[in-house]
Amino acid sequence: MQPHGQGHEGETSFVRELVHQFRTSDSRAWDGKTDAEVLAPLVRRDRRRAGAEDGSVDPEVFWRIEIFFQAVARTLEARTGIPCAPMLRMHHEGFGRVVVLAGRLVAVTKTLRDVHRFGFDSVEALIEAGERLVTAGTLLIHRFPEVAHHT
Amino acid sequence: MQPHGQGHEGETSFVRELVHQFRTSDSRAWDGKTDAEVLAPLVRRDRRRAGAEDGSVDPEVFWRIEIFFQAVARTLEARTGIPCAPMLRMHHEGFGRVVVLAGRLVAVTKTLRDVHRFGFDSVEALIEAGERLVTAGTLLIHRFPEVAHHT
Repeated sequence: MQPHGQGHEGETSFVRELVHQFRTSDSRAWDGKTDAEVLAPLVRRDRRRAGAEDGSVDPEVFWRIEIFFQAVARTLEARTGIPCAPMLRMHHEGFGRVVVLAGRLVAVTKTLRDVHRFGFDSVEALIEAGERLVTAGTLLIHRFPEVAHHT
Repeated sequence: MQPHGQGHEGETSFVRELVHQFRTSDSRAWDGKTDAEVLAPLVRRDRRRAGAEDGSVDPEVFWRIEIFFQAVARTLEARTGIPCAPMLRMHHEGFGRVVVLAGRLVAVTKTLRDVHRFGFDSVEALIEAGERLVTAGTLLIHRFPEVAHHT
């Protein structure tokens, strides 16, 4: 895997931003780990089951989801020049909603079910999902620039 | 105080909705309490200090803030016909952000500081603050109807 080679020419790629978000979070020691190792917890086959038997969700999972949408927000911001902020609303029952706000625009919205299973079948699927969210958000910001610039 | 007499003729009033939100929440027994008693925890002079000495915030405070913005959302929805959803993002350090989303529009946004002090000097101030948020949100929805209708 070469995440640094992904993304569009001259653009911030989602996966590069995602790796960066993980590496700059101060919760872990990432030194000496490859990008693939950093991303592994988001890839289903590479990780241990995160859901506890009582149905509660490992806080670790919330943190990963935050990092993922933080990367979506940062990439969207880099591509549009509009400050973007993720907002997550998680319920311990395992569902939630995540949005990325650009000014007064909800650039990205996603309902999450089975939060404890948040992850992707492969790194490629992860990249595709992230890029898809960023692309949809970019289109919406370009469609409603006045709302995205509104504070 | 006569909260039921507040609000605009023929419109859902914020304070009536707020009292309703408190009364229909299943966390308390509200039977036999007046509307003023129901609202008292949001009025600073009527309540005990909610902040713990270690700086953490009483979960009770989060719940009250949720009820307040739930009432803002329900009133906005009643006045515009657009489904509105509050989203709160609280940090235990005592600050947070609350938004009310109408479709892809951030109809209401508010940064909260000193969350443990969330409250109003009087019931009148509470009503004014709520109505002001609802009015601003209504104006924005009318200004950007396409965004508010966007799913």
